[in-house]
Amino acid sequence: MKAAVMGYGTIGSGVVTVLETNRDVIAARAGEVIEVSKVLDLRDFPGDPIEKKLVRDYMDIVNDPEIKIVVETMGGVEPAYTFVKAMLEAGKHVTTSNKALVADKGAELIRIAREHNVNFMFEASVGGGIPIIRPLLKCLTGDVIEGIYGIVNGTTNYMLTKMANEGSDFDEVLKEAQAKGYAEKDPTADIEGHDAQRKIAILTSLVAGRQIDYQDIPTEGITKISAADMKYAKVMKRVIKLVAASKKTGDTYSARVAPFMLHEGHPLYHVDDVFNAIMVHGNMLGDGMFYGSGAGSLPTASAVVGDMVDMARHVDKNVYIRWEEEKLILADSTTDSYKFFVRTSDDENTIESAFKDAGYVNAGIDGEIGVVTEEMTQGEFDEAIKKLSDVRSVIRLV
Amino acid sequence: MKAAVMGYGTIGSGVVTVLETNRDVIAARAGEVIEVSKVLDLRDFPGDPIEKKLVRDYMDIVNDPEIKIVVETMGGVEPAYTFVKAMLEAGKHVTTSNKALVADKGAELIRIAREHNVNFMFEASVGGGIPIIRPLLKCLTGDVIEGIYGIVNGTTNYMLTKMANEGSDFDEVLKEAQAKGYAEKDPTADIEGHDAQRKIAILTSLVAGRQIDYQDIPTEGITKISAADMKYAKVMKRVIKLVAASKKTGDTYSARVAPFMLHEGHPLYHVDDVFNAIMVHGNMLGDGMFYGSGAGSLPTASAVVGDMVDMARHVDKNVYIRWEEEKLILADSTTDSYKFFVRTSDDENTIESAFKDAGYVNAGIDGEIGVVTEEMTQGEFDEAIKKLSDVRSVIRLV
Repeated sequence: MKAAVMGYGTIGSGVVTVLETNRDVIAARAGEVIEVSKVLDLRDFPGDPIEKKLVRDYMDIVNDPEIKIVVETMGGVEPAYTFVKAMLEAGKHVTTSNKALVADKGAELIRIAREHNVNFMFEASVGGGIPIIRPLLKCLTGDVIEGIYGIVNGTTNYMLTKMANEGSDFDEVLKEAQAKGYAEKDPTADIEGHDAQRKIAILTSLVAGRQIDYQDIPTEGITKISAADMKYAKVMKRVIKLVAASKKTGDTYSARVAPFMLHEGHPLYHVDDVFNAIMVHGNMLGDGMFYGSGAGSLPTASAVVGDMVDMARHVDKNVYIRWEEEKLILADSTTDSYKFFVRTSDDENTIESAFKDAGYVNAGIDGEIGVVTEEMTQGEFDEAIKKLSDVRSVIRLV
Repeated sequence: MKAAVMGYGTIGSGVVTVLETNRDVIAARAGEVIEVSKVLDLRDFPGDPIEKKLVRDYMDIVNDPEIKIVVETMGGVEPAYTFVKAMLEAGKHVTTSNKALVADKGAELIRIAREHNVNFMFEASVGGGIPIIRPLLKCLTGDVIEGIYGIVNGTTNYMLTKMANEGSDFDEVLKEAQAKGYAEKDPTADIEGHDAQRKIAILTSLVAGRQIDYQDIPTEGITKISAADMKYAKVMKRVIKLVAASKKTGDTYSARVAPFMLHEGHPLYHVDDVFNAIMVHGNMLGDGMFYGSGAGSLPTASAVVGDMVDMARHVDKNVYIRWEEEKLILADSTTDSYKFFVRTSDDENTIESAFKDAGYVNAGIDGEIGVVTEEMTQGEFDEAIKKLSDVRSVIRLV
């Protein structure tokens, strides 16, 4: 079975490594050896074993009738979309690790794959090496999924773990993460929550069977989280995590990406460093959780290769995925209910004019106090908080 | 799509409930409504909606050409084996939650299913509602699985959690677990580790692609674990868990079921109460973990129904499962290496004649001391321990 890799970066080169390292066991599972015969990249890789397989034009892959499976690990929507579409239309199976492509064009590419009796798979697009797409599509099919709560971004989880353990501030930890290669030079997509936003859009679309536009999901990153917030969290025996959440609300879902303060019994409480975990609540299953290496070359490539084996086994069959293109309107996010943590220098009278059942947390920081509100809707909170003259941070509790 | 349920107990009745509760969403995923038309049980269920569907003779199901999917939730090897075999030979798909049947006859029933172009599935046989069989078979196919470490028995995990939290002794906790329905009247299979032994045999067989006989797996239960052991664990910042483990060793695996003392950073450390979790280490993935409700009527039934949906989607196709009948001889378990925790009243000279790098743990229990040995093989330990005159407990560390 011949395959092609589009984009020989961190993950693409990982795919080649996985296929070589585990060649025999993969062949036993796939029914035959899977061999990469072409690699699309505009760069040169002098001395690399794939050097002679490099092509510059994606049409060289489209026009190669021997290639049945194509891996897309370029990232970004274009030109990945144009290339992937052409591959599917040429009757080739495609697997991708590209969450931007899947969040934006997943439903359409699934339809195109179905029309051409091939498969479009994307296990690696969420949770890196952690199996989550296939368990949702193939295992939890007896359940109504009522909630998904994920730590799906390794960079921010590493940073928040560091901040919690070392008391350091955001900027300092970001610099360190960049130096170690855990954060990119331009870390915006991670620290502003855009990466997590796309991932929860994908998971929610799969659970709903309908298109969720990631732009519709209210998203806050971790840039406002400070060492002071971490001090309060410690006093409250909580941790602060960037959580991507969606929750069944009537016939639709409400979704949100934001930092949350998790209580000690929460399954995501102990998910530290670059690890990812996705908790799923089913109406029959109860809570389930999937945990592991959410990023990195080999773990992510491992998930891509898992898709390749599945495709090799289903070379003449489209495996049904329910993700219709018709857009699902998310529930009004101002009706979500939470308890909120607030830091303020206001006095008790002012605080209690806003929140009638306020609880107080003292973390020993002069001139301010932590407040935990009663459970209230986002809309109610947005009104109430206007009564405070000084708000230093707001973090939801779960 | 018509289905039958064999055994209307906890799980069988749960299957009927799941199919009814989530009827529409299951139909959307399966492509059609799945309806239970016959239930095999020797008991009467007066007033139960399935009363009119009851049959006493499994041949009534075999001979019903409308029934395409059969659920086996009777438990035990016989007569389940005879019934399941007859169903497969009659061209019906079968899913089971019965780990005794799968551990004993899994490879053969997979072959029979393949020969009749139907499927034999068993997601619910390990980890209850937690997806683990399908992730191993369909997701982690790019990896060589080098280790599996699972808390796969909810009864014993509940008991050990209670003992750790409350300082109570084994017998007391067992009585309480029985009163609450978490432990059976005859708790032998759980507390002696036999249940976990079958489950790790199934998982190891799937990873190896060959038959592992559960009888070959050295197995210790939790009956010797005492309140005193828990005191030491607390001092050592460890927890005691019944772990079912298997580890790649050359071309085969070494496997073991035993109580282990886990360090605080271990992914299974925080798995408490009746929850199950299975950690998988792949040579490319690194560590992954699957966590959730490992038992109970609806969670387990949810996994059974997941299989039913998969079967409805593959009604004319055998989904390949690699589990050959040829037996794989496990590695010699005396060559496994561990650090061991030992309680003894012997003096230091005696202890150090046995273990040259012994560390000591004082839990404030008069007349004895805790010893942590150097890392050594099981064989070396078995020799060394003979030098002690008093051994009050032995627990491996991980």
